[in-house]
Amino acid sequence: MTYGEAIDLDPWRSSYAVRSSGLNASEVRSLFAVANRKEVVSLAGGMPFVKALPETALVDTVERVIRSYGPEALQYGSGQGDPGLREVILEVMAVEGVSARIDDVVVTTGSQQAIDLLAKLFVDPGDVVLVESPSYVGALGVFRSYEADIEHVPMDDQGIVPDALRERIQHLRARGKTIKLLYVIPNFHNPAGVTLSSARREEVLDIAKEEGILLVEDNPYGLIWFDSPAPAPIRSADDEGVVYLGSFSKTFAPGLRVGWVVAPHSIREKLILASEAAILSPSVFTQLVIRTYFETEDWRAQIEQFRLLYQERRDAMEDAIREHIPGLTHTTPGGGFFLWGTLPEGLDSKDMLPRAITELVAYTPGTAFFANHEGRHNIRLAFCYPEPERIREGIARLGRVIRDEIDIVNTFGPQQSSTRIDNHVDSPPPNLG
Amino acid sequence: MTYGEAIDLDPWRSSYAVRSSGLNASEVRSLFAVANRKEVVSLAGGMPFVKALPETALVDTVERVIRSYGPEALQYGSGQGDPGLREVILEVMAVEGVSARIDDVVVTTGSQQAIDLLAKLFVDPGDVVLVESPSYVGALGVFRSYEADIEHVPMDDQGIVPDALRERIQHLRARGKTIKLLYVIPNFHNPAGVTLSSARREEVLDIAKEEGILLVEDNPYGLIWFDSPAPAPIRSADDEGVVYLGSFSKTFAPGLRVGWVVAPHSIREKLILASEAAILSPSVFTQLVIRTYFETEDWRAQIEQFRLLYQERRDAMEDAIREHIPGLTHTTPGGGFFLWGTLPEGLDSKDMLPRAITELVAYTPGTAFFANHEGRHNIRLAFCYPEPERIREGIARLGRVIRDEIDIVNTFGPQQSSTRIDNHVDSPPPNLG
Repeated sequence: MTYGEAIDLDPWRSSYAVRSSGLNASEVRSLFAVANRKEVVSLAGGMPFVKALPETALVDTVERVIRSYGPEALQYGSGQGDPGLREVILEVMAVEGVSARIDDVVVTTGSQQAIDLLAKLFVDPGDVVLVESPSYVGALGVFRSYEADIEHVPMDDQGIVPDALRERIQHLRARGKTIKLLYVIPNFHNPAGVTLSSARREEVLDIAKEEGILLVEDNPYGLIWFDSPAPAPIRSADDEGVVYLGSFSKTFAPGLRVGWVVAPHSIREKLILASEAAILSPSVFTQLVIRTYFETEDWRAQIEQFRLLYQERRDAMEDAIREHIPGLTHTTPGGGFFLWGTLPEGLDSKDMLPRAITELVAYTPGTAFFANHEGRHNIRLAFCYPEPERIREGIARLGRVIRDEIDIVNTFGPQQSSTRIDNHVDSPPPNLG
Repeated sequence: MTYGEAIDLDPWRSSYAVRSSGLNASEVRSLFAVANRKEVVSLAGGMPFVKALPETALVDTVERVIRSYGPEALQYGSGQGDPGLREVILEVMAVEGVSARIDDVVVTTGSQQAIDLLAKLFVDPGDVVLVESPSYVGALGVFRSYEADIEHVPMDDQGIVPDALRERIQHLRARGKTIKLLYVIPNFHNPAGVTLSSARREEVLDIAKEEGILLVEDNPYGLIWFDSPAPAPIRSADDEGVVYLGSFSKTFAPGLRVGWVVAPHSIREKLILASEAAILSPSVFTQLVIRTYFETEDWRAQIEQFRLLYQERRDAMEDAIREHIPGLTHTTPGGGFFLWGTLPEGLDSKDMLPRAITELVAYTPGTAFFANHEGRHNIRLAFCYPEPERIREGIARLGRVIRDEIDIVNTFGPQQSSTRIDNHVDSPPPNLG
């Protein structure tokens, strides 16, 4: 670190820990603040369409929580989470083929907190965390915040590539690196929109076990499938080498901040203690809201409604891309919220963003999903939040932006991209759709 | 670290980060699980008496949140927190003399998360965090989890001793240590039950500013005063060198997990980014529940009711101690939840706990509130949760336990205490009253 290079208005500048010294808001973040305006079609944020939840059932649920549980609903709770909610979680996981016991589950403040606690438990500065190429921006932020060495492993339309994984592990070990975690999102990947094939799940698990690397399986989108369900989670084949993360944010509502972890015994005990250190206990009230809703309403039908709704939006987005941006190659997600596009030659997704926002459409530049400098030719397009008509309009606008961009490149040649290394997160804050 | 000394059933034993390698549940923790039984009078946990909240108003509130805010209440929110709730927080803080702007406030998942984020932002392994003697167990756990060197500064019945603080800083600096934070609880201290005098607040602030040490002022109990309000918070005299923590857990309900931080500009920006990395955003729903309750109900009257209720319980505890354990010297808290006792010569609070629980009364041993080996002669007695009659019964039982203990010491001499250094937290989990 060097000091005194620029005028520094922060009197605490020299007090920060090494892990947070580079924690600054990016210029992309300020752009997204602008993108929050109504007239902008945002294909950037991953907000679920919670409007689809029935208001009367919600009112009944919250009222029932207060009347049935009384003051207990407002009290400190167990660090591990409400046992009744953990029963519900077992039922939800069973739909995807994961079987666990109630004691195996730890409730967290969204599965984001689970990633944070796992990184805190396992990552010393310089330890390697293996992630897919690209990977979830929120996980990268966490790993970075514990000073991990984040290493991307190639993926293709079948998900992470086992041979590449094996090679990367050998290469890193040869360099004397300690590899702590392998973080994967097998179902309807954020941001890549691909699903890890069944055969590869076995292979990836075998590699992790052989190499003694803890596999973290993040599965927030598994139940949001369109054409057919995803293969069984990796956790269904192994309960000692896999930590499984689940969430109610996509199947119910993110504003309650309830996710969970299923972990091998020893890890789970430490997770509970780490969670108590961080927040004492997850909110009892929001846990009981979810428990009560899932116990009394037809949650399977609700999730099916979400599936159909998001499928319609994916179809709308794909149709619109075919019509307005035929030059955009992209994945065809079989579920989830996101589609991953590769821009025509010479275009830079980060440089193009201000111009897109001027044209009233927002997306997330691919750079957000890499800890290195990749992703400039990629964009993530989210189809979860805007209605189909708005998606079509947004893609039409994006098509115009891309055509203009191609004209500029043809006239002046590709722009010189900045290559500054920073700790920035080029992704919208969670509330900016 | 040494391996292979004992049979180790944890296959991930060698994978943990240094910061979490000693994270194990203590034997005291298992005892508290037993203490959770109905027949035990627990003077251990700091659970507020939420039964005092009016059920009808709560039902109205949660219903109103769903009806007024609709799906927004269930969506991801701002990392900084709901602006309307931050307005409410300004009003609440104004009662104690803290003035701030809405932009200065960051909402957190209880003020426990605020402590965690501050430690994450500032503490590198080996950095010193100065705390009072004793200090809040939850804060010690957080500082330990970031590998801080926790240094206790003496306190007396006027709070932390400024001369001792100055001396400790010089001593540590002479040893080449980097001091990052000074963490204090000026009002109705947990666990010590004392309040920092007005003159000392100025002096402590002056020292922190002179020495360039960030002062963290934790104030969860300020509004729960009995005889007279506490002096104005330190933050009311300085907005550049103080980070102020507040909470709704004691004035309203801990099960919603809503606290807040008021921090100088640059720190606040980093806090928001760090909080987004940890949990994306605090729960919108619980924020709106508190906002709506405070906007529509008479929260000042509610807090006054809490004050009278806890005052009655403090009085009941003091009367009972006078009657049943006259040999127990203790602080007389002017507010808050806790009283700090010093056991008669030769008694050990940790060793005595199993015998107390056998006699159906629980307390927290003083050792929980020190990062070193102090506190064995102290106990924390919480008067917040049991009704006055139960408090009297609990103190009567504790009196018998202490008398028996004195007999044993007189007959056999003081026991040899274990002096093993560990990372254990000798405090009840949050939900065990």
